[in-house]
Amino acid sequence: MCELLGMNCNTPTDICFSFTGFCERGGNTAEHADGWGITFFEGKATRTFIEQKSSVDSPIAEFVKTYPIKSLNVIAHVRQAKIGAVELQNNQPFKRELWGQNWIFAHNGDLLDYEPKLRGRFTPIGETDSELAFCQILEFIDETFPNGIKSPEDLRKPLYELAMEIKKFGIFNFILSNGEFMIVFCSTKLQYIIRQHPFHEAHLCDKDVTIDFSNHTTIKDKIAIISTVPLTDDEPWMKLQENDMLIFKNGEIL
Amino acid sequence: MCELLGMNCNTPTDICFSFTGFCERGGNTAEHADGWGITFFEGKATRTFIEQKSSVDSPIAEFVKTYPIKSLNVIAHVRQAKIGAVELQNNQPFKRELWGQNWIFAHNGDLLDYEPKLRGRFTPIGETDSELAFCQILEFIDETFPNGIKSPEDLRKPLYELAMEIKKFGIFNFILSNGEFMIVFCSTKLQYIIRQHPFHEAHLCDKDVTIDFSNHTTIKDKIAIISTVPLTDDEPWMKLQENDMLIFKNGEIL
Repeated sequence: MCELLGMNCNTPTDICFSFTGFCERGGNTAEHADGWGITFFEGKATRTFIEQKSSVDSPIAEFVKTYPIKSLNVIAHVRQAKIGAVELQNNQPFKRELWGQNWIFAHNGDLLDYEPKLRGRFTPIGETDSELAFCQILEFIDETFPNGIKSPEDLRKPLYELAMEIKKFGIFNFILSNGEFMIVFCSTKLQYIIRQHPFHEAHLCDKDVTIDFSNHTTIKDKIAIISTVPLTDDEPWMKLQENDMLIFKNGEIL
Repeated sequence: MCELLGMNCNTPTDICFSFTGFCERGGNTAEHADGWGITFFEGKATRTFIEQKSSVDSPIAEFVKTYPIKSLNVIAHVRQAKIGAVELQNNQPFKRELWGQNWIFAHNGDLLDYEPKLRGRFTPIGETDSELAFCQILEFIDETFPNGIKSPEDLRKPLYELAMEIKKFGIFNFILSNGEFMIVFCSTKLQYIIRQHPFHEAHLCDKDVTIDFSNHTTIKDKIAIISTVPLTDDEPWMKLQENDMLIFKNGEIL
């Protein structure tokens, strides 16, 4: 399978602490060793770092862990390949442009016998069910809202219905962002925490690293972290239930 | 303005040597200090490294110079901003998906009063004339070849005519690749060299670094390097003339 990590904030924040723990799951504390990827939104732009190697053996992951890129929206993924070879084009997150915005997507799960008919506006480059689902979602959004959306709320009902349709083919946990908001759908496993004032210490589950967030934040900061499995062992993570869809914006749930 | 670098080969090759010299032009030997970017094709996938900082001050550029990613097609760019702020979304190369392929583009020059009407299949994310031209080119290719192309030769005449149209708005040197071939158009300045057996030593213009390619190649290798200005001072670079368009594939000119 694989694991997902998302971050949505109200102030540009680096993800070095969370990513350090998450990377351990690419071969050390979990078996997701078939590649990894992380995408940072920076303004309207995105930067993606991906590698076929396991995140624990990847010099690029090592670099990213210590290079504080400040971002409002980040999506990361460690892969355990099931559908699609261990090749770079099958690494997540995936990206497409829609309405002059970057859209980023990562999926955890497997969709079996999933063969949606696509019209060609978005076409998978690799061979994963995940990229296919991303293309179907974006085509659906583009066709449902030919003039764009005014608010992420516009997406809530139609995207939920589509997610429920796709989920009929298997496990379909996903994180989607256009750099302004982050949509999270839980099919089996996703948890989140919102860090805000008063900030405390936190300790990673996967590595003996502690951070005191009060040294790195202001009273106004709100940082939502979404993860397949909690990344810290001393914070109150909230478990999403099957079929929950949440929309995060500025570190809050809409 | 800015500078372009392209590489097209018949065997996966790293670009560390050329990129080391090219990076110097981002603030040391030339004034293109408003960001840089490089995209590697790896199979059907691409990896892009970009940063707003000048390439001579960029930790990511430093990393890329010494991290040998082997690729058949690479495009790089150092930026001196004219149109569009010094922000990451204006950094080149740009990427879009067409026909389930990654297409990568970088441009050197300025297009003035250039306002093509686009239909929305490809929309700029940033504010540069360059990304706008890329979107126009891809829209044109998509509409001219609704069933895709059989060979890069299909593109030669129509793309040349479009390039000549866009060139009416200013300087328009560009490099375009879909990972299979590389199309190069010269409006004012572009040079290239094809390295092949027998391989020799070469010395960078911008830094006192020499490489002996015979230690890193086989007798069959062909490597075309395209650059705004020659990168080495002891090799016979070929100068493109105004309005020249070349298509490179497997390190050869078609």
